[in-house]
Amino acid sequence: MKASIITIGDEILIGQIVDTNAAWMAAQLSEAGILLASKMTAGDDKKSILTALDRAFHDADLILMTGGLGPTKDDMTKTALLEYFGGGMVFSQQTYDRIEKLFVKRNIPISEAHRQQCYLPDAAEIIVNEMGTAPGMWFEKDGKSLCSMPGVPHEMKYVMMHGVLPRVAAISDVVYRQKTIHTSGIGESQLADVIEPILESHPVSIAYLPSHGAVRLRLSKVGKAGEEAQVEDTLESAVAPVVEAISQYIYGYDGETLESSVGKLLLQKGLMLGTAESCTGGYIAHLITSVAGASRYFRGSIVAYNNDVKESILGVELKTLEECGAVSEETVREMVAGALPVLGCDIAIAVSGISGPGGGSPAKPVGTVWVAVGSKEQVMVKKYLFVKDRILNIKYTAVYALDLLRKFLTAR
Amino acid sequence: MKASIITIGDEILIGQIVDTNAAWMAAQLSEAGILLASKMTAGDDKKSILTALDRAFHDADLILMTGGLGPTKDDMTKTALLEYFGGGMVFSQQTYDRIEKLFVKRNIPISEAHRQQCYLPDAAEIIVNEMGTAPGMWFEKDGKSLCSMPGVPHEMKYVMMHGVLPRVAAISDVVYRQKTIHTSGIGESQLADVIEPILESHPVSIAYLPSHGAVRLRLSKVGKAGEEAQVEDTLESAVAPVVEAISQYIYGYDGETLESSVGKLLLQKGLMLGTAESCTGGYIAHLITSVAGASRYFRGSIVAYNNDVKESILGVELKTLEECGAVSEETVREMVAGALPVLGCDIAIAVSGISGPGGGSPAKPVGTVWVAVGSKEQVMVKKYLFVKDRILNIKYTAVYALDLLRKFLTAR
Repeated sequence: MKASIITIGDEILIGQIVDTNAAWMAAQLSEAGILLASKMTAGDDKKSILTALDRAFHDADLILMTGGLGPTKDDMTKTALLEYFGGGMVFSQQTYDRIEKLFVKRNIPISEAHRQQCYLPDAAEIIVNEMGTAPGMWFEKDGKSLCSMPGVPHEMKYVMMHGVLPRVAAISDVVYRQKTIHTSGIGESQLADVIEPILESHPVSIAYLPSHGAVRLRLSKVGKAGEEAQVEDTLESAVAPVVEAISQYIYGYDGETLESSVGKLLLQKGLMLGTAESCTGGYIAHLITSVAGASRYFRGSIVAYNNDVKESILGVELKTLEECGAVSEETVREMVAGALPVLGCDIAIAVSGISGPGGGSPAKPVGTVWVAVGSKEQVMVKKYLFVKDRILNIKYTAVYALDLLRKFLTAR
Repeated sequence: MKASIITIGDEILIGQIVDTNAAWMAAQLSEAGILLASKMTAGDDKKSILTALDRAFHDADLILMTGGLGPTKDDMTKTALLEYFGGGMVFSQQTYDRIEKLFVKRNIPISEAHRQQCYLPDAAEIIVNEMGTAPGMWFEKDGKSLCSMPGVPHEMKYVMMHGVLPRVAAISDVVYRQKTIHTSGIGESQLADVIEPILESHPVSIAYLPSHGAVRLRLSKVGKAGEEAQVEDTLESAVAPVVEAISQYIYGYDGETLESSVGKLLLQKGLMLGTAESCTGGYIAHLITSVAGASRYFRGSIVAYNNDVKESILGVELKTLEECGAVSEETVREMVAGALPVLGCDIAIAVSGISGPGGGSPAKPVGTVWVAVGSKEQVMVKKYLFVKDRILNIKYTAVYALDLLRKFLTAR
């Protein structure tokens, strides 16, 4: 069994939003052992939607569709579904009652547009959406299934979790297993030179996914339903020698991130972390605190965007700032030394750099960043030269700083 | 003329990465006046890629393709292109010389995989990629064009900016104009109730895009090349009455964001901002500093994730934390009062809440957030109840806090 995803919306086709819905849905299907044959986006017009439906039904047995179900006039999805699956529209009192209840709670009047939303194709089975006004709709045709869902991410996720995935779990006919290995500090082709010879004797698929200073490595194996044990054995026999060969570069597996894996290390060692950030403007603290439970190992951060704040709170010497500059080894060392007592932490990360587009000079061009990680006893310092792009420099700095923290923690 | 985008990669189909490349490319095409007819993703296998090529050539005259050009074995793209466009492979000395130069500079040896990358279809015109090893390839067929680009975002962007967009600019035959109006503090259907009657006498398209406490409204108009003035007039006549009707909810237009528009307001008023963040963990500071030039109006942030830091740096009274709790009106008021002198700013944002999944109670469930914005003279405080999801709560808090800052600044 294969699946296909259709996302609907002119806002995706003009690049106004990034299609995060499709990625989330694809990850859920993948975890349920269902492979995606294709993924496509159609505009807010009937012809595009019908073309996408034809293609998706050609590629797959299960089609998941999101978007185009809002209470406003830009909705062409229902019309297209009606034409594709036949039947008429019927007023869903159940849906209306639910919207009414939701709105009374929020003290919002029901508009005519919301009343119109309650007319749904009678060919569809309604899947309740407790998070918003548009329900999910499940259609069947020639032994294949389609579910249409709203495009608002948390509404789509609710419908997926409560309505779609339980229905899907029972009907998968393939076994798919994957292992993702997260590495940093080594390039894609260097990894390939080490790994490819190992995999010659192991029948698994491999993919490399480079991004901002890290490479994710995915080993995968597909088999038929019932062959779970065999598929898992084949995969495990391939993973073991690969992990052994590149262990020094591995920071985590599967759903782990650099921030979750340094969190785990801090917790194991019973250490509290703090950050003193200049060019990253709080982004490192944000990454660390995006992990649930971060309060067990994270005290806080001083975002010293202005040099006065580096002096007044972190105690960086005016002399250092004047003689060495804010972007220097001396400054990040003093930022670490200042952050430790001020934040009451055992280890501090300090970063200072020139994100751009302004602020560069021939001696310190845009992309120059100093990173320090240290405790009272020991400090590791590194200088980097990243790129010309502000947002990329912020992201690179955060990844390299977290990786330096990982090295600091594992070297102890 | 219409375009289609094909992104290639199993990592997209299994939901391991979000397809940000497609969104960026779509936005560039849209700005160049070229409408996207479709967007699709194919897996790393020849059959999927060939199917996608057939579909894209059916939908469009210009096809942009990314991904599947890395130095590793997972590359099926070149094989598929060779089959689709015919011809053979030829060694590109120009590409090899460029890779060699790049690698000497970085002190990396050239691997066999990189040598293989230099074999390129002879039917293609090579588009130089100064950011990496895989060049862009431009093909022509039956009066239609296709450009294949690497999937690493900054490499793709380089090839787009330097090779593709200049070629594309000359061949567009439509005029497309759009105006995006960013609103906050009003729902999608309430907006529709106000706007739809106005637009009945204006022949433009409208789309609503809700996300985390804000709704983007896009008015657009398409015409033929040469009708620029007429298309612009029609659009402007529709935009004016809409803007007038909803002006109190508008925080910006087109590429503006809430963080860039509050930055503009702060700059106009000559005020310096600081933040004192608990549950958002630095995310508000990150949003503010993601805007170039933020140092002109942003001093820094105290991320007081641990209550000790709220006391020691921000001067929140232990009594307040014990009696009212960290998530309370009293605490965020004291965080503002403490942040102003410590960060040396004129205005401070303070937030404290329960992002979840842990930490909730019947009186203060997950999603409870207090936000304060204030100066020495005046403080505005609001309580919110968001959702059960940690990441969403962080995002909602940031958007509502920035919107409260906007209201604070425009009310003065």
